[in-house]
Amino acid sequence: MVGYAFMGRVHSQAWRSVRAFFDVPITPVMAVLSGRSEERTAAAAADLGWAAVETDWKELIRRDDVQIVDICTPGDSHAEIAIAALDAGKHVLCEKPLANTVAEAEAMAVAAERAARRGVRSMVAFNYRRVPAVALAQRLVAEGRLGELRHVRAQYLQDWIADPEFPLVWRLRKDKAGSGALGDIGSHIVDTAQFVTGQTLTGVSALTETFVRQRPLAEDSAGLAAGAAGAGETGEVTVDDAALFMGRLSGGALASFEATRFATGRKNAMRFEINGSLGSLAFDFESLNELWFHDHTLPAEDAGFRRILVTEPGHPYAGAWWPPGHGLGYEHTFTHEVKDFLEAIAAGTDPSPSFADGLRVQRVLAAVERSAADQSRWTPVQ
Amino acid sequence: MVGYAFMGRVHSQAWRSVRAFFDVPITPVMAVLSGRSEERTAAAAADLGWAAVETDWKELIRRDDVQIVDICTPGDSHAEIAIAALDAGKHVLCEKPLANTVAEAEAMAVAAERAARRGVRSMVAFNYRRVPAVALAQRLVAEGRLGELRHVRAQYLQDWIADPEFPLVWRLRKDKAGSGALGDIGSHIVDTAQFVTGQTLTGVSALTETFVRQRPLAEDSAGLAAGAAGAGETGEVTVDDAALFMGRLSGGALASFEATRFATGRKNAMRFEINGSLGSLAFDFESLNELWFHDHTLPAEDAGFRRILVTEPGHPYAGAWWPPGHGLGYEHTFTHEVKDFLEAIAAGTDPSPSFADGLRVQRVLAAVERSAADQSRWTPVQ
Amino acid sequence: MVGYAFMGRVHSQAWRSVRAFFDVPITPVMAVLSGRSEERTAAAAADLGWAAVETDWKELIRRDDVQIVDICTPGDSHAEIAIAALDAGKHVLCEKPLANTVAEAEAMAVAAERAARRGVRSMVAFNYRRVPAVALAQRLVAEGRLGELRHVRAQYLQDWIADPEFPLVWRLRKDKAGSGALGDIGSHIVDTAQFVTGQTLTGVSALTETFVRQRPLAEDSAGLAAGAAGAGETGEVTVDDAALFMGRLSGGALASFEATRFATGRKNAMRFEINGSLGSLAFDFESLNELWFHDHTLPAEDAGFRRILVTEPGHPYAGAWWPPGHGLGYEHTFTHEVKDFLEAIAAGTDPSPSFADGLRVQRVLAAVERSAADQSRWTPVQ
Amino acid sequence: MVGYAFMGRVHSQAWRSVRAFFDVPITPVMAVLSGRSEERTAAAAADLGWAAVETDWKELIRRDDVQIVDICTPGDSHAEIAIAALDAGKHVLCEKPLANTVAEAEAMAVAAERAARRGVRSMVAFNYRRVPAVALAQRLVAEGRLGELRHVRAQYLQDWIADPEFPLVWRLRKDKAGSGALGDIGSHIVDTAQFVTGQTLTGVSALTETFVRQRPLAEDSAGLAAGAAGAGETGEVTVDDAALFMGRLSGGALASFEATRFATGRKNAMRFEINGSLGSLAFDFESLNELWFHDHTLPAEDAGFRRILVTEPGHPYAGAWWPPGHGLGYEHTFTHEVKDFLEAIAAGTDPSPSFADGLRVQRVLAAVERSAADQSRWTPVQ
Repeated sequence: MVGYAFMGRVHSQAWRSVRAFFDVPITPVMAVLSGRSEERTAAAAADLGWAAVETDWKELIRRDDVQIVDICTPGDSHAEIAIAALDAGKHVLCEKPLANTVAEAEAMAVAAERAARRGVRSMVAFNYRRVPAVALAQRLVAEGRLGELRHVRAQYLQDWIADPEFPLVWRLRKDKAGSGALGDIGSHIVDTAQFVTGQTLTGVSALTETFVRQRPLAEDSAGLAAGAAGAGETGEVTVDDAALFMGRLSGGALASFEATRFATGRKNAMRFEINGSLGSLAFDFESLNELWFHDHTLPAEDAGFRRILVTEPGHPYAGAWWPPGHGLGYEHTFTHEVKDFLEAIAAGTDPSPSFADGLRVQRVLAAVERSAADQSRWTPVQ
Repeated sequence: MVGYAFMGRVHSQAWRSVRAFFDVPITPVMAVLSGRSEERTAAAAADLGWAAVETDWKELIRRDDVQIVDICTPGDSHAEIAIAALDAGKHVLCEKPLANTVAEAEAMAVAAERAARRGVRSMVAFNYRRVPAVALAQRLVAEGRLGELRHVRAQYLQDWIADPEFPLVWRLRKDKAGSGALGDIGSHIVDTAQFVTGQTLTGVSALTETFVRQRPLAEDSAGLAAGAAGAGETGEVTVDDAALFMGRLSGGALASFEATRFATGRKNAMRFEINGSLGSLAFDFESLNELWFHDHTLPAEDAGFRRILVTEPGHPYAGAWWPPGHGLGYEHTFTHEVKDFLEAIAAGTDPSPSFADGLRVQRVLAAVERSAADQSRWTPVQ
Repeated sequence: MVGYAFMGRVHSQAWRSVRAFFDVPITPVMAVLSGRSEERTAAAAADLGWAAVETDWKELIRRDDVQIVDICTPGDSHAEIAIAALDAGKHVLCEKPLANTVAEAEAMAVAAERAARRGVRSMVAFNYRRVPAVALAQRLVAEGRLGELRHVRAQYLQDWIADPEFPLVWRLRKDKAGSGALGDIGSHIVDTAQFVTGQTLTGVSALTETFVRQRPLAEDSAGLAAGAAGAGETGEVTVDDAALFMGRLSGGALASFEATRFATGRKNAMRFEINGSLGSLAFDFESLNELWFHDHTLPAEDAGFRRILVTEPGHPYAGAWWPPGHGLGYEHTFTHEVKDFLEAIAAGTDPSPSFADGLRVQRVLAAVERSAADQSRWTPVQ
Repeated sequence: MVGYAFMGRVHSQAWRSVRAFFDVPITPVMAVLSGRSEERTAAAAADLGWAAVETDWKELIRRDDVQIVDICTPGDSHAEIAIAALDAGKHVLCEKPLANTVAEAEAMAVAAERAARRGVRSMVAFNYRRVPAVALAQRLVAEGRLGELRHVRAQYLQDWIADPEFPLVWRLRKDKAGSGALGDIGSHIVDTAQFVTGQTLTGVSALTETFVRQRPLAEDSAGLAAGAAGAGETGEVTVDDAALFMGRLSGGALASFEATRFATGRKNAMRFEINGSLGSLAFDFESLNELWFHDHTLPAEDAGFRRILVTEPGHPYAGAWWPPGHGLGYEHTFTHEVKDFLEAIAAGTDPSPSFADGLRVQRVLAAVERSAADQSRWTPVQ
């Protein structure tokens, strides 16, 4: 695994736990953790349960005891690491967004396809697909329970930078993060919307904004210096604070999206609502064990949004864990991801979401940026 | 009063009830009801409590025992009736949207200003301003409790025409209704957003759609024939089924709007959420007695969206009714409207929302239509 | 009508409104309002729309232009007025609880039965039966949608006397009110539970408490002096502040009840939840337009409590008012009551809840008081 | 660890995960798993990550490489194993309820106290104390934010045996489980109520019921044969299906409790609501990351139950995991338990809840059973 910050910790928990709950065909061994600082990486490896340490990810890729490379670094390094790993014959799980640019994502998708022909698998870690409630939503749509889709409204609302004194961390710098709310959390709702509906966005009209343009400099929590952080010095925020866009789905529905880190009181509100001719769905990650479903085929007197507690044995992934009503949390989505990835490797099939799926999201993000820069004009996704 | 359908019934209940709950300076007398069919109008007058009947609204305006004219007809007749009434020295309460076109609305606003100089008052019936929870939301924003506003997301979701077999009523015909979801319910969320924030929309980018383009012909419930409704005959839907738009508010916030009659399971979900630097608000008319408020100035460990039951004596309008927790319903918003209108007439002040406010909404709707017709291009509101 | 305080105001609104919304067979005329103070009663009559005034309820009963007597006074006067009115051949609508003692209630039930033989009707105003959501709950149970009932948990939570400085109003004095939370709000949940389940309570075990035993004296809001209220003087609270009881229903279900005015933050939370072998229901008056229904016959993966917005044309009472999603409020329950009462009078049938139903509730309350006074011992309702 | 069924799996996940998230002073080594069937135990050990296996728990206690014994068996074996382990100088974590009888629990508490004098620690696994939201509730009460407590209403609602065809598993047999809903889930709400309020129950009045008295025989999921399960054979349910009780807390509040497995649609609804003079709290485990808090010291116009998402760094346990809004699940409560247990062992302090706390709960359950058997008569807890 490359990287041991937030994503590294949650991925480690997934690798550590998967076998106790799922009958996986491959027993993962947590072999090597890679990070730039030897001291810090060693400490993280001890806490997280990795057997060895490398300070250069290239060494990690060269090792024979590594068959799977899990990339948990910021987006600017994804392409280089992933392509090298795939070309070295390692299966790759890569954090989202796939890359910081469409060009990088295209190169990665090409590498993934090339690797797949040699039986080497790749997957992009849009973990929200594997929230049981989201997977159930996808199933209900696929089964036709919603009929013809009319509306998707998706939002990803956080508030962690609402305070103008919050420092200029790497996620607020275009060179590291590629974009702001758009790429970090907007990518999740784009992928989720496309996954749940089984349709793709054909075009968008967009608006972005940076509310706070100067912020105090700060040592980044991931160890990336944001600059020489003298007292009171500030730096420029070079990414969007919020992105709004509207689009059309390939099946004819209208969709709206909003990604922001300025929605005070909303902590991790990854929400969507979908209206179809036969029913509707609503989800909010802040209540991740619930899916709301309205069955419009029932008599009107009987109908209403029902709160399905997605913890039944028959629900996606849920049966492997605890009895009904005993909820799951954030990290379980990664355990499900790892489980499906291991199964795909063993079965010799391509796991999903693929790098091509990641590229598709990247193209939507690029269209959003183009539209926002061009008076919100309608911009096809290509 | 002119018109006795849905709006006529609810306005009648307001006129009938206002004095029992509010110490109004003018005691309204329900003098004359006007409608085209004498028989039907007389029956409605008996049920609704009107003393006399006219089949021509022009006669109603001429009567000396009429000082206030309340216009509850479809939008295409508003301008003619309102201008005539104002010029005849009658105070006018007019249903929303103010008119079907900007030109009509402008003429009405001019007439209203002319009348105001003679002490004749006018008001447009955006009743949702007088939901106690919405009025409380406006108060909290005005008091600075939300700080600098960042986001407004407003939706008005209904589902009454989701079924393609629902007939072609007057609200689905451009000649009668002016527009579809946009003017009927979109106008409400535009007015509400501008009212609550105290800011105006400066520009928009929009998308509209008509999902079902042909519908069975039908005798309209208001008695307006939609055409010769032979068995199986259909007619063209000439208005939007749904409208989405994004905009910027004069204070710098981003706003998104969605009006649709295809959101299955949502019956009258007039919802908004507002995020500011110091707090956030959320409202849904389907739970009209509740306002959700997040106070971001509290310690993070203590904070969260709180459900304020807007039924306390200190809440707008609520004290006149029942003890705390004994909720109000839809019609009460009209009673509040009538009360404020009577007070303004007695005090010789201009009630709000004025025809100028109605015109402002109309201009937003026009900008939405222009943007939607021009590839969602950013369109200033003017 | 006798009494013009809180209940008088809401009953007046019902009489005033019923004809505009329901096609009632009798057109009510608001003839005479009775109250002790001539001046106050006249003022109330003007505001509430009553044509004449009497300062002695006995005169009101004697009048030929009065056919219906609506009793909105405190419980200690119900028996005398109701029996006199019934014996004088007037139809009687009486506020709840029916009386302050079982003996009075028995006498009233006897009088009601005697009157019924002469075609004179009587009804006790347990208005919550006519919340559309509660009436729908009753219908679902009656249709067998819940199967065999296992559990009822009912609560009526308010907080208006949580502050020890709140004064000693008449509702806190046993001589006027009979009991405290038990009779005032506990009676509602007992009646509602029996109504919705169609079963009766066969026995109870109870606990009551008075948390604040001394309170400042105060002129009662209804004009009933609570004593000579000198500065700082206090008086004894002679009723319960809270009552808890458990019981068994005639069909075998277990039931729990709690009535309190000390549940801070709960304003008028008249709540119940019912679990049956085939489904469950939940209701809270603070969200009065919603009924939550779990259909246990659905596949587990699909099931969950659904929020039925009880505003559809097919729902009890709702169709007479506004389109779906346009909620009703507290007062509408009284309009429904009056409508059903008028229909029963015209049809020559006995309206429900009858005085016998009111007596049945009274017997439960008496059993609660006996059990609470006898170490919570199981006490049959008789 | 002894036992590898439901509780064994979740405890294993806790031991496996604790070090990656908490800076525990002792690094736990998952040494030995004990179970009766060698084959099954070995398979479980491989999946769950235990290094060795014993088929006799007595051997496990004898091993030198075991310092901590974690007891995850049914209640009938707790006393014997726990006392033996404590006497052998092993720290003991024991699943709840502490025992099946007060006598056993007393012996265990004595053994725990004896062991504590030698520095050997013991803890009973009432895991719900360590839901962050429940721990926060306790903190708010302890800080005085609720003022004087008036009401506690606690419920634990499940529905897994609502179907009469559900088989006679060990949890439905008195010899194995001690009692039914009462001991299994009622014990949780008793402990939680006492923990959160910091008060003890002084007496109770109770009602219990067994709705379905005969059930099909079945091989128990934990490998305990429920009898020779021939086709169509049934056996007697010897425990309660549901238990209701009311009580008084040592600080003067009234409390009500309900434990049932027949509440259709409620999967794991461990709920409580607490009303104090200055505020109120509400919690439902089905939404385990939320605590609802009403601050009654705020102006009435501003107040309401707020939904605190208990995922902030300053919340109990939450900071060790993920960023705000990224919820936790059921198993995390056990990780927190293990973390606190390890810290107490290292610090030489007595962890909480102690065996004495477990005994206190047991005494409440015993009083409930006595009251239920004696006409719900008030029964002091002793």
